Amino acid sequence: MKNNIVTFMACDCDYEDSEIVIFGAPFDGTVSFRPGTRFAPPVMRQESYGIETYSPYLDRDMEDYSYSDIGDLDLPFGNKERVLEMIYSQTKEILEDNKKPFMFGGEHLVTYSPVKAVFEKYPDLRVIHLDAHADLRADYMDEKFSHATVLRRIWDFLGDHRIFQFGIRSGTKEEFEFAKNHTHMNRYSLRQIDQYIEELLKYPIYLTIDLDVFDPSVFPGTGTPEPGGVNFKEFIEFSQKLKGLNIVGADVVELSPHYDHSGISSAVAVKVVREILLVMSNGYK
Amino acid sequence: MKNNIVTFMACDCDYEDSEIVIFGAPFDGTVSFRPGTRFAPPVMRQESYGIETYSPYLDRDMEDYSYSDIGDLDLPFGNKERVLEMIYSQTKEILEDNKKPFMFGGEHLVTYSPVKAVFEKYPDLRVIHLDAHADLRADYMDEKFSHATVLRRIWDFLGDHRIFQFGIRSGTKEEFEFAKNHTHMNRYSLRQIDQYIEELLKYPIYLTIDLDVFDPSVFPGTGTPEPGGVNFKEFIEFSQKLKGLNIVGADVVELSPHYDHSGISSAVAVKVVREILLVMSNGYK
Amino acid sequence: MKNNIVTFMACDCDYEDSEIVIFGAPFDGTVSFRPGTRFAPPVMRQESYGIETYSPYLDRDMEDYSYSDIGDLDLPFGNKERVLEMIYSQTKEILEDNKKPFMFGGEHLVTYSPVKAVFEKYPDLRVIHLDAHADLRADYMDEKFSHATVLRRIWDFLGDHRIFQFGIRSGTKEEFEFAKNHTHMNRYSLRQIDQYIEELLKYPIYLTIDLDVFDPSVFPGTGTPEPGGVNFKEFIEFSQKLKGLNIVGADVVELSPHYDHSGISSAVAVKVVREILLVMSNGYK
Amino acid sequence: MKNNIVTFMACDCDYEDSEIVIFGAPFDGTVSFRPGTRFAPPVMRQESYGIETYSPYLDRDMEDYSYSDIGDLDLPFGNKERVLEMIYSQTKEILEDNKKPFMFGGEHLVTYSPVKAVFEKYPDLRVIHLDAHADLRADYMDEKFSHATVLRRIWDFLGDHRIFQFGIRSGTKEEFEFAKNHTHMNRYSLRQIDQYIEELLKYPIYLTIDLDVFDPSVFPGTGTPEPGGVNFKEFIEFSQKLKGLNIVGADVVELSPHYDHSGISSAVAVKVVREILLVMSNGYK
Amino acid sequence: MKNNIVTFMACDCDYEDSEIVIFGAPFDGTVSFRPGTRFAPPVMRQESYGIETYSPYLDRDMEDYSYSDIGDLDLPFGNKERVLEMIYSQTKEILEDNKKPFMFGGEHLVTYSPVKAVFEKYPDLRVIHLDAHADLRADYMDEKFSHATVLRRIWDFLGDHRIFQFGIRSGTKEEFEFAKNHTHMNRYSLRQIDQYIEELLKYPIYLTIDLDVFDPSVFPGTGTPEPGGVNFKEFIEFSQKLKGLNIVGADVVELSPHYDHSGISSAVAVKVVREILLVMSNGYK
Amino acid sequence: MKNNIVTFMACDCDYEDSEIVIFGAPFDGTVSFRPGTRFAPPVMRQESYGIETYSPYLDRDMEDYSYSDIGDLDLPFGNKERVLEMIYSQTKEILEDNKKPFMFGGEHLVTYSPVKAVFEKYPDLRVIHLDAHADLRADYMDEKFSHATVLRRIWDFLGDHRIFQFGIRSGTKEEFEFAKNHTHMNRYSLRQIDQYIEELLKYPIYLTIDLDVFDPSVFPGTGTPEPGGVNFKEFIEFSQKLKGLNIVGADVVELSPHYDHSGISSAVAVKVVREILLVMSNGYK
Repeated sequence: MKNNIVTFMACDCDYEDSEIVIFGAPFDGTVSFRPGTRFAPPVMRQESYGIETYSPYLDRDMEDYSYSDIGDLDLPFGNKERVLEMIYSQTKEILEDNKKPFMFGGEHLVTYSPVKAVFEKYPDLRVIHLDAHADLRADYMDEKFSHATVLRRIWDFLGDHRIFQFGIRSGTKEEFEFAKNHTHMNRYSLRQIDQYIEELLKYPIYLTIDLDVFDPSVFPGTGTPEPGGVNFKEFIEFSQKLKGLNIVGADVVELSPHYDHSGISSAVAVKVVREILLVMSNGYK
Repeated sequence: MKNNIVTFMACDCDYEDSEIVIFGAPFDGTVSFRPGTRFAPPVMRQESYGIETYSPYLDRDMEDYSYSDIGDLDLPFGNKERVLEMIYSQTKEILEDNKKPFMFGGEHLVTYSPVKAVFEKYPDLRVIHLDAHADLRADYMDEKFSHATVLRRIWDFLGDHRIFQFGIRSGTKEEFEFAKNHTHMNRYSLRQIDQYIEELLKYPIYLTIDLDVFDPSVFPGTGTPEPGGVNFKEFIEFSQKLKGLNIVGADVVELSPHYDHSGISSAVAVKVVREILLVMSNGYK
Repeated sequence: MKNNIVTFMACDCDYEDSEIVIFGAPFDGTVSFRPGTRFAPPVMRQESYGIETYSPYLDRDMEDYSYSDIGDLDLPFGNKERVLEMIYSQTKEILEDNKKPFMFGGEHLVTYSPVKAVFEKYPDLRVIHLDAHADLRADYMDEKFSHATVLRRIWDFLGDHRIFQFGIRSGTKEEFEFAKNHTHMNRYSLRQIDQYIEELLKYPIYLTIDLDVFDPSVFPGTGTPEPGGVNFKEFIEFSQKLKGLNIVGADVVELSPHYDHSGISSAVAVKVVREILLVMSNGYK
Repeated sequence: MKNNIVTFMACDCDYEDSEIVIFGAPFDGTVSFRPGTRFAPPVMRQESYGIETYSPYLDRDMEDYSYSDIGDLDLPFGNKERVLEMIYSQTKEILEDNKKPFMFGGEHLVTYSPVKAVFEKYPDLRVIHLDAHADLRADYMDEKFSHATVLRRIWDFLGDHRIFQFGIRSGTKEEFEFAKNHTHMNRYSLRQIDQYIEELLKYPIYLTIDLDVFDPSVFPGTGTPEPGGVNFKEFIEFSQKLKGLNIVGADVVELSPHYDHSGISSAVAVKVVREILLVMSNGYK
Repeated sequence: MKNNIVTFMACDCDYEDSEIVIFGAPFDGTVSFRPGTRFAPPVMRQESYGIETYSPYLDRDMEDYSYSDIGDLDLPFGNKERVLEMIYSQTKEILEDNKKPFMFGGEHLVTYSPVKAVFEKYPDLRVIHLDAHADLRADYMDEKFSHATVLRRIWDFLGDHRIFQFGIRSGTKEEFEFAKNHTHMNRYSLRQIDQYIEELLKYPIYLTIDLDVFDPSVFPGTGTPEPGGVNFKEFIEFSQKLKGLNIVGADVVELSPHYDHSGISSAVAVKVVREILLVMSNGYK
Repeated sequence: MKNNIVTFMACDCDYEDSEIVIFGAPFDGTVSFRPGTRFAPPVMRQESYGIETYSPYLDRDMEDYSYSDIGDLDLPFGNKERVLEMIYSQTKEILEDNKKPFMFGGEHLVTYSPVKAVFEKYPDLRVIHLDAHADLRADYMDEKFSHATVLRRIWDFLGDHRIFQFGIRSGTKEEFEFAKNHTHMNRYSLRQIDQYIEELLKYPIYLTIDLDVFDPSVFPGTGTPEPGGVNFKEFIEFSQKLKGLNIVGADVVELSPHYDHSGISSAVAVKVVREILLVMSNGYK
């Protein structure tokens, strides 16, 4: 008789047979305003039972593809360096098994590790970055590694013009200046994706979605709500345009369930994951 | 000295003198995810005191028309069949008195009974259905009568192409397939109403509004929030187009007040009712 | 690589090696006031990570005993009869494997099935019942099987003077009358256990704890809060007196997490389970 | 066909036939900290459906006595003087019809009016006052009539040693000094009632219960929670001692439902009302 | 060593050196539905630490301008007349020091006083009014001064066609009639500002923003949520059009933090203030 | 004109003239379960306006003594070592000015620094420790400095039998074993203080109160609620026994306001501070 297994949308594929591998990185140790994203992965699994496996937007059904969910990493508390190391190792292992990693955060700093691991496998990697915040600070309160610096740290190894940012509406003046010369920064909206699609089709892609890219009306459950974001329909249009891209890794971060009193943010998070999983999937199982 | 009377927007018309009769059907017995719509009718009455009787959208005032509110049915708990029977009887009685029923749910299954009663009086009835979900399953967890099957059960007696669905964005693949051949299903929006108005003008209409047709940002207080819905302005445009239709019955269902921490869903529900009541009303009192 | 396993307090014993087997029965279909106990079992597992495995009250540590957690039953929605049947089968199986069942509810009606199964194995069974409510109605709104009748249904097969009730403070006059002749009913407190211990030592015991026996200040997260209940220290004193009893089955029911905004009810529920598990355990693993 | 009638515990006695008449005074205009008691009366009616009419504490059933509930006064907003005048008139009318008034507040200032009216009918009136706060200020922010001065204003016409205060634990030094010479003030507890019972048996009694007399753990839903209050069992003991007193009027004030997220305060309020109604009732209907 | 100073966005300019002076008017005494705006000013200060001083919309940084925050007025409770008088005196003083007042409400009635003071200094003043409600009643429940009459009271001294209203979607029929002849009323949106800009450039402007002009999805934390409002992007477009206007005073009112469970309304309020402060500022410090 | 000063209970003493100096240490960086104590100090100041300065328990009034509140330390995020260093420096400075430090946490780890500084001034220091948790782990997840190890780290420099623990009810078996030989550990209650008073009168005392020592019914607003704690009356009895002790420093930690939906925990925290401040105060100002 089996032990209690809890997976995203009850996906029951074995690790070996899966194209995409889901895991959680429940860490929020560098958050400066409201912590709580550590609670997101279990909530996302729980809430996923309320939605359908079929997407009318993509006319695809999750039951036709192969996902496994290996649960959450048991991250050592209060040790940022080892946290990043463990996430890195996990992603590395998934990539070596020729599977695609899909990570549930946690705060945005956790994105550093899978992007690094994926970059080592795909040196011509491009990153698509959805966020309210630029996350391009050189440092934050004298810390190099922080939720507010993570894209800057990724730029350190990725280099110029390989990060494509959408929905950005908050940052210091310096971050906006930096972006002008080093990333493709697009403000307030996801619609500008059109002009980059042709280029993005040429490269392997890592997609990182900071859910605070959504307007707080759509997604209140996050640590630093920034009014002026995108709505769900705009996201759906965006996600449909990703069809055909070679997305080799992805994450969805910054759901903070304790600020999500009605559960609407979890509902958004779960549907975002469904759409991205479906758009990333290549073959029927 | 009178007992404590609580009616929607303090409408004080006697039953005998009213054109439209409001009643509540506080049942949520077949809900699979989050129950709680049983609490909606009293909350809607309570919240209705916060809004004006005058609609600037329609330039009409509720005080110029005649409504009565006869309170909630005392539904026998845990007996779905008798619940449907009691709602049916209540609607039948209202119709026999040549009045129009307006029901506050409860979950969507309760819609079955008034539509049946109204259909028996108006055999050429058409149903306008606003919802996030198709509600067209043949059965749900082996149950024939469920919130997830209610439009299919209505189709059983109404037949093909008499159900006009708007805002649909969730369902199984089978439901979407079924709709292609048997209903007029319109996805994600209410705007497609334009193409049907001419036809709808010819028939008596029953209007059923599952409030989860709204985006969860607009209406968080519901059991199964589905991102990607309509906003309030789109609803107002829709409701204004109903002017001139012969709406002979209506309901508003699936408000779940315990998930409505700020009361914004109740505020939407109450204004939806006001607009529909005003657009259904024919004569000054 | 393993799938995501979630068990109570991360107990990792295999089913085969365990003395006690935990499972969830997430059903709240007959609740008349506030539903929501269906959400309890996953919340109890999640919250259990916040407490220690060591009980200073009993000077015992869960790590020294053998528990398995086989997850929640997938109960067919809206079909009370089949729900009871499935719980019965599950308990039967656990008993046949010579293990003790420990069930997480759900509403109190679910208790009917394990008590029946345990009674069939142990015909001289006694039931200890902690509750705010007598649950002794002959029927409730014409339904025989309901959260409000469950102890009466158990009495039907168990017979007179075999149910020991504690903490009772709500019921109809008829229920209190019935109790006088047919059960051992003790009001408002758990302290009266002292006078029964000698007798209870002679028989196998099923222990059912409706968590609303606690005062709502201690345990707000329940459907029908009844002021005037017991506090946690009184429960601890009670549970220590159970040492030496032959408890062959147990359940903890009526946690409704959506009314538990601060998580204090879950914290109580989880500690109640820890104490009862420890007091039921016989041998080191 | 009747309009929607909503009464406390569905009491359906006509005004004419009732011994006790319930009405609401939803006013919170002088509250200095957290307003919201204006919402209490409808919530108390709604929540009353969750409890039994039978009290095991008193072995009495509400169904055996005669109560009517005439709903809430429609108090003119922002005009304290006229509010007090209207409550006074309502109480006067009830008293002239030889019935006993039972008022649901609102804030504590509303108590002024019924005590005045009752005093005019019963010049030897005594007042029993349960509260966390002394409410004996000479004025509050230069206002004579305020929630913080109400017992002082009552003392103005009632005179020395006719107010019996219990549970008091907050006030200025001056209030505590004043009480020493002018009222019977008892701190922190209700148990001191014993020493006054003999005296109180000689006079008509008005009972005013500020629900913040309860500890905030028991009753969080109030504007100014004061730790160190009484628990529900202490209240039950207190209320049982009132048997035999000639209570000619009563009120229950200061429930603020928006701070009562789990509904446990409403549950307490409703049971307090049930117990007091039962202890005030003289004859079977 | 200094005492604890708390200012909006930690602005640390001395009063003497500041161009704009912030102060709070925490009064909600005439609110008829849900009170609580009295709690707004401290919450706005606290939440302001979560956002950046740099606005990407205006490409301006608050650190380049000079603001002081002198805290909240200590308003005498329950005395509307003196409250208005004290706010008037405070504004007068700021204006005499040749600074611009920026007030945090409180309810909308508080706007009366600064507009009066500003009008006395600038007799050709125009008022821009963002709101869901017309606030043009002649009186409200027989009260002349109320949140529902405040613009009518301002019209009393300002005269015809000097009030420019945007976003209005609720009021009595009479208010809408009144507006036709006496104000510039624009419904449902802020976009109509375009047609007035040329005229407004000629006059000193007072800008009053009732935050319920936003849709409740964007801004749930208010006393009377009115669906059908504007979103944040529409506000940003509006605010950018104000560049060049001579705004000599402003306020932001009707945030009710206790209905803002996720903090998204505070986040909106704080960004609205930032944008208006930046657009009002003339010179670098 | 002054900037906005916000102090505990509006205490307005200058630093120089104060006997006791209040400051906040808003750090929660090592919390493993639910973070959020970083938000406590501003909430405690805000809530303190709701209570009286006079304590009827001690018959003392805060207005007769001299306190200053210098606000919160601006702690560098994510750098535990520097956080502890900064708190240490602040306390050192206060002690050198011959004043007594009173710190608002934050999580319990922050207590390490003031105890160290006070110990350096008073080498015969004794520590009174109220808590649900032993906090005596040798390390926690391989970290030496953590909320779960703080008393062990204090023991490192203080030595055996100088820590007096009360209310303890959670810990590992090892912690309880350690306590037997090295501290005075008292379980579940504060009443055991009686047996130590005579000894404690001989030494300077540091008092650290982890507010989770209270039962979660009394104090839900904390990260790790542990049922079975003390109630407020028991605390009051305890605090009265401290009269005469030479308390040279104190702190109150672990209020987590986001789990305190009704504000009752803040109310407790604020009154605890008032009582301790009053009992620590020596001379009239």
